[in-house]
Amino acid sequence: MERHDLALIGFGGVNRALAELISDRGSALTDQLGFELRVVAITDLRLGSLMQADGIDLAQVLALGPGASFASLPGGHPEPRNEVVIRNTTADTVVEATFTNPVDGEPAVSHVRWAIESGRNVTTTNKGPVALAGTELRALAEAHGVRFEHEGAVMSGTPVLRFAERMFAGLRVEGVQGILNGTSNYVLGRMEDGLALADAVAEAQQLGYAEADPTADLEGSDVQLKVVILANEVLGGSITTADVTRRGLSTVSAGDIVDAAAQGRRWKLIGSARRDADGSITASVEPVALPLEHPLAGISGPTNAVAFDTDLLGTVTVSGPGAGRIETAYALLSDLIAIDAGRRATVGEAAHA
Amino acid sequence: MERHDLALIGFGGVNRALAELISDRGSALTDQLGFELRVVAITDLRLGSLMQADGIDLAQVLALGPGASFASLPGGHPEPRNEVVIRNTTADTVVEATFTNPVDGEPAVSHVRWAIESGRNVTTTNKGPVALAGTELRALAEAHGVRFEHEGAVMSGTPVLRFAERMFAGLRVEGVQGILNGTSNYVLGRMEDGLALADAVAEAQQLGYAEADPTADLEGSDVQLKVVILANEVLGGSITTADVTRRGLSTVSAGDIVDAAAQGRRWKLIGSARRDADGSITASVEPVALPLEHPLAGISGPTNAVAFDTDLLGTVTVSGPGAGRIETAYALLSDLIAIDAGRRATVGEAAHA
Repeated sequence: MERHDLALIGFGGVNRALAELISDRGSALTDQLGFELRVVAITDLRLGSLMQADGIDLAQVLALGPGASFASLPGGHPEPRNEVVIRNTTADTVVEATFTNPVDGEPAVSHVRWAIESGRNVTTTNKGPVALAGTELRALAEAHGVRFEHEGAVMSGTPVLRFAERMFAGLRVEGVQGILNGTSNYVLGRMEDGLALADAVAEAQQLGYAEADPTADLEGSDVQLKVVILANEVLGGSITTADVTRRGLSTVSAGDIVDAAAQGRRWKLIGSARRDADGSITASVEPVALPLEHPLAGISGPTNAVAFDTDLLGTVTVSGPGAGRIETAYALLSDLIAIDAGRRATVGEAAHA
Repeated sequence: MERHDLALIGFGGVNRALAELISDRGSALTDQLGFELRVVAITDLRLGSLMQADGIDLAQVLALGPGASFASLPGGHPEPRNEVVIRNTTADTVVEATFTNPVDGEPAVSHVRWAIESGRNVTTTNKGPVALAGTELRALAEAHGVRFEHEGAVMSGTPVLRFAERMFAGLRVEGVQGILNGTSNYVLGRMEDGLALADAVAEAQQLGYAEADPTADLEGSDVQLKVVILANEVLGGSITTADVTRRGLSTVSAGDIVDAAAQGRRWKLIGSARRDADGSITASVEPVALPLEHPLAGISGPTNAVAFDTDLLGTVTVSGPGAGRIETAYALLSDLIAIDAGRRATVGEAAHA
């Protein structure tokens, strides 16, 4: 049985959910996947770092109480020391789930770069490395013969990048349109019901759908990063956030939203990218009053969706969760499955050569 | 460059669209796929049959006028002689697109069986062989070491079976719910607008969405076959149409539909299958008044969709065309791509052994 040894960088909700999956499902998961997952390193801002080449006891680590430190365990250290761990771990694959600075993608970009440079596969759920440094990191991964997987960067565990890569062979995707932010979608839905923007936001915050500062969600900069990823990975573009025009919810009035609903239209914050006849990409984030028959008009609440416009099939749409700790941990698991499949294909090719 | 030689059984809209794709896109398609497609046999109820081992000139065949016969061409015969052609063609793959008798799946079932027995891969767009004889034909294909592909049997070219097979590794699909018939979905939408059933059906017939006898569409027997396929292939069941309870549109009144719309619900003809705690499958086709936030409530007009209920991701939905000659021809192309990928994997394994 093949095994992948993992280094978990960041031990917040998502990597913790992945550790729970591995720990709870154990041999059933191994049987299902055809390979074993073992965690040999963990770093965390609060807990510090832990390196155990024979495999970390996940149940023990998951049971650590508040104020605990990895320093008390063999191979533990009070500081996260991300670079040291990433460069020196015995893991073949680094699972990056820290956070993204939306301007330069740090520290996630450095985590990914260190992992690739030291010959390790990477999976990340962070938009930053993909949207802001994707071209560099993809090239670096190719040069080092490792995989850089990031399904979770667009719609959490709902397969979007891999869907486009694997389900559309033989046809051409001409454009993508998406509802890529659950907070703004929830807020728009409540404004249709007659709530003012501020009240809808307060409600979303109470329900845990919106952060204390919801600006990035409501004004489209979160979606902007996802549009860059879709444009570059699905349409083969090479755009940056500066190429994505952006207008947020503040450009629509509560009256506009109620009026549209009465006329059989629904406002949605739409991220879109389209390949023009000359091969260039036009991309935007903006509120759009969609007719009800549009495939994205019925996407409600925190659900996300991407509609792919294709030459032979017309529009094909995938919808599902766009957030959530278990859902995002599944994105990591799906990346690990892709990494393993890539390894097998390489072994097969080498044997065939 | 690898090549697949094809025998097209049935030369109506769908196989004709596939021939147009191969003929029109030629080397661009070959470059994109990494393998060549060549048609070496065609059979048709009206045109007869044509076998040319060096490859048929598709442009010539597509240009044949009404009343033409393959008998006038080298390797041609005035009768389709499906069994003779399928058993004796030089093709490695049979592309079956004739028609399905909804009771026993003939003649498509025999076409598929003959192809597999004579060691050929099969792709079909017919529900019949898959829903009514799927277990037998899958076993037969395995015994003969060939592929039996049928993505188009559920939602035309919109990937559903392959989506479930390839995008959900590591999680468990607990149930599926689908809008699997565009005619009934269109009719329900028009009834929401206030039309009587008969008027909505007449309009659908005028637009080409409904057949002269729309009973199978409106009363759910078309969906019933698709539910069998989803239950058996996605949920690992072994059910037959008799296990799928069925109620059609005639069990809902126009008043019910208008009332539901006023209360924020939408009636949809839902095909569903669910794996129960004891491993058995519960399956049905029936009109359901969905709340607007249900992922299938917004699926309008002739669009089809399947919502997969999963353990880790909750509900993930794919929507897209459920019919159309080019869309269904794309289903065949996606099957041919899967057949080629299977061949490569087998070659890789053999080299590795």
